[in-house]
Amino acid sequence: MTIEDLVDSEMNSLVSDLQTLIRQPSVSAKKIGLVECANLVAGMMQKSGIKSEVLYLDDKTLPPIVYGEVKSKSNPDKTILFYNHYDVQPEEPLELWEDEPFSGKIKGSQIFGRGSADDKGELITRIKAVEYFLKKTGDVPCNVKFMVEGEEEIGSLHVEQYLEKYKDKLACDGVIWEFGYVDAKDRPIISLGMKGLLYVELIAKGPVRDAHSSLAVIIENPAWRLVSALQSLRNPSGKILIKDWYKEVRPFTKQELAVIAREPFDEKEFKAEYGVKKFVNNIKGKDTKKALVGMPTCNIAGFVSGYTGPGAKTVLPSQATVKIDFRLVPGMVPEKQLQRLKSHLKAKGFSDIEVKLIHGEAAARTPISDPFVRQVEQAARQSFGDAIISVSSAGTGPMYSFVKVLKAPCISVGSTYMFARIHSPNEFARTDLLNKCTKCIGKIMELFAKDK
Amino acid sequence: MTIEDLVDSEMNSLVSDLQTLIRQPSVSAKKIGLVECANLVAGMMQKSGIKSEVLYLDDKTLPPIVYGEVKSKSNPDKTILFYNHYDVQPEEPLELWEDEPFSGKIKGSQIFGRGSADDKGELITRIKAVEYFLKKTGDVPCNVKFMVEGEEEIGSLHVEQYLEKYKDKLACDGVIWEFGYVDAKDRPIISLGMKGLLYVELIAKGPVRDAHSSLAVIIENPAWRLVSALQSLRNPSGKILIKDWYKEVRPFTKQELAVIAREPFDEKEFKAEYGVKKFVNNIKGKDTKKALVGMPTCNIAGFVSGYTGPGAKTVLPSQATVKIDFRLVPGMVPEKQLQRLKSHLKAKGFSDIEVKLIHGEAAARTPISDPFVRQVEQAARQSFGDAIISVSSAGTGPMYSFVKVLKAPCISVGSTYMFARIHSPNEFARTDLLNKCTKCIGKIMELFAKDK
Repeated sequence: MTIEDLVDSEMNSLVSDLQTLIRQPSVSAKKIGLVECANLVAGMMQKSGIKSEVLYLDDKTLPPIVYGEVKSKSNPDKTILFYNHYDVQPEEPLELWEDEPFSGKIKGSQIFGRGSADDKGELITRIKAVEYFLKKTGDVPCNVKFMVEGEEEIGSLHVEQYLEKYKDKLACDGVIWEFGYVDAKDRPIISLGMKGLLYVELIAKGPVRDAHSSLAVIIENPAWRLVSALQSLRNPSGKILIKDWYKEVRPFTKQELAVIAREPFDEKEFKAEYGVKKFVNNIKGKDTKKALVGMPTCNIAGFVSGYTGPGAKTVLPSQATVKIDFRLVPGMVPEKQLQRLKSHLKAKGFSDIEVKLIHGEAAARTPISDPFVRQVEQAARQSFGDAIISVSSAGTGPMYSFVKVLKAPCISVGSTYMFARIHSPNEFARTDLLNKCTKCIGKIMELFAKDK
Repeated sequence: MTIEDLVDSEMNSLVSDLQTLIRQPSVSAKKIGLVECANLVAGMMQKSGIKSEVLYLDDKTLPPIVYGEVKSKSNPDKTILFYNHYDVQPEEPLELWEDEPFSGKIKGSQIFGRGSADDKGELITRIKAVEYFLKKTGDVPCNVKFMVEGEEEIGSLHVEQYLEKYKDKLACDGVIWEFGYVDAKDRPIISLGMKGLLYVELIAKGPVRDAHSSLAVIIENPAWRLVSALQSLRNPSGKILIKDWYKEVRPFTKQELAVIAREPFDEKEFKAEYGVKKFVNNIKGKDTKKALVGMPTCNIAGFVSGYTGPGAKTVLPSQATVKIDFRLVPGMVPEKQLQRLKSHLKAKGFSDIEVKLIHGEAAARTPISDPFVRQVEQAARQSFGDAIISVSSAGTGPMYSFVKVLKAPCISVGSTYMFARIHSPNEFARTDLLNKCTKCIGKIMELFAKDK
């Protein structure tokens, strides 16, 4: 029996363990179920033969990380680290879920629930690949480590502190990132980088309490202030109007441009999935791909003010709030960009608007020439039948911290169908992709162990 | 014992009846407790000696009106109509209430709760004035009618239909309006008019479901569309930029300007109450008063999009919604203004934004020269020791419909302290003002009856 056969024959147990993980809510934005979920993951690792610990920072109120370790008898000199997270996005809007958000319900080859794909589905493929090696050979091809954090969905606020504190424990030669997309043709996308993020809240304040809206003739409405401030941030094409915003953006290298050119992207499918007729600025072809990899954005993630219930309420709100996420690219420093945003608001006459930093992290990219890239690509081709290399994901993660502290290449590969509705209602994981991904993780360990 | 003495000696029963009314939630925006409250009011009238009926339109699912009537034996040729409403504004935001929103809790001379001032406090003064006449004399100075509706807080959506259907029942020679403010020096403000209202919802739609915000490079964000559309509606000074918006605005008459000039307005007190340092555009003195009486506005009553909970969620929302109330002044026709808004959005490239009409009603003003004005003013001076005439309230009500159908002058006078937090958390009524107002209502009936 090969590892591949074991993956196939044990799919039921993989799926039922994934259901168990989904059914434990662990919403970091709401601080719900985090320690419970960490303990659940640690217990699951133990059962799989992985020595696990739940580790804390000095401040024990922060969500812990789960550390896992298996030492290789045959190859104790090379170490692979699996970085994942046990926390999930908030489940709202509730009314759009077909089943309970944490149901783990199975329909055909789909497993539904918040976190089913992002990131509990990915985590389970890593744990199971290790479990099957141990089951079959009593050993693993190389040393294996796990770092499973609980704040990824709120911006991995303390991951760098964890990396620094447990630097020696976490030392490794390569990092398999927490997620990886699979495109509509079932090709895994091997992503070598991540965009950075600056997540802020802007708060405009008006009268000390909501006032009757007949007073709008004399009392300034903070919602209008916020609208004006927002309007000053970017033009309708999405260009950010903050001074020097793009100043340090590093241009693409030739090698990056070549990889981007090769990357497939099915516009039609994408538009159909999201029900949009055209992309922003009618962007097309190669430009779309370049934008996803390398364009900074300024996105309204949410805003709220005044009365938002049914019917009419004639109110002049006392406050208006917006959540904005700016995606950053290599070269941009979050702290610097935050200062630029603040200076912009001041210069435009909005110094009364409060800027609250929620989170910032820089972008990172693993060089295309790193041998680890070849190993992962080969493993993915064998397990999925094909593979696509991507210079960078359009998403964000704390890759920059890993590169800085552990000085190891980070590569993202996984089981998440690109339209799996992560961060949205009715998120799901696909069992066929979980199966292939688990095999792929096994292959990566073997190829990584062999290469010198 | 005079009527005044009776008002004083029966204050406890007035207050406890008001508490009973407050404790029956009746939120028209949520369709909660409306029929229950109508029945409660009808029962309370019966107990006071007022013949009452709960009347419906053909569509029995709409909130009914409570009709009340007492025929005068001594003066059956003159009829006064009290117009009030039993519905209240939504109680949100809940977390800012010191007590339960429908508590009716008494602290000193204040009675707290949603509707305590607007409009259950006012209604009780009318009912009690009639009750005391009947108690003392077995008669009323003139015929008395009540029309108490249940949709005032959502724009009196069917009041005109009720007026038309029950035109004969409701026929009268003068209308006492549902509310009246009392300023910080305890002077009642006798208001002769109301602004109109156009209340709409603008809805911008994006991807069919919330998307991951990393896609903001290619998928247009409806929140940004809405911000741009909003920004096109007015300039930072509050001037509405919609073509021909001010076209039919009737300028003030000389008489109106003279009354406005006499009207006191304590800017300092106002600013302290709402915690604002300056008024919009640094407006001052007479201009402030002119604005309150006669300036059209475009107010954001609420907006919402995407994730608004704690922490960060990197989402590209599928929808963004804003509620806007435009205040109108005499001359402006709501339907016409709605068309202008729609044309504006189309012309500015926002034809994809849906415009949903929530409510529209025209402004109205009773001429300063009407004898009814003198009678109310005299009564108010006697009961409160002073009185202020105001050309128009800054607020809105269906006065236009009353004038049109009943062809009777409408005057607003009442017991609501101007900082009573109506429409806001911790709304309250003041027992001293309820007392004076009840006396004033009695006096109005007497003076109105005597005058020919």
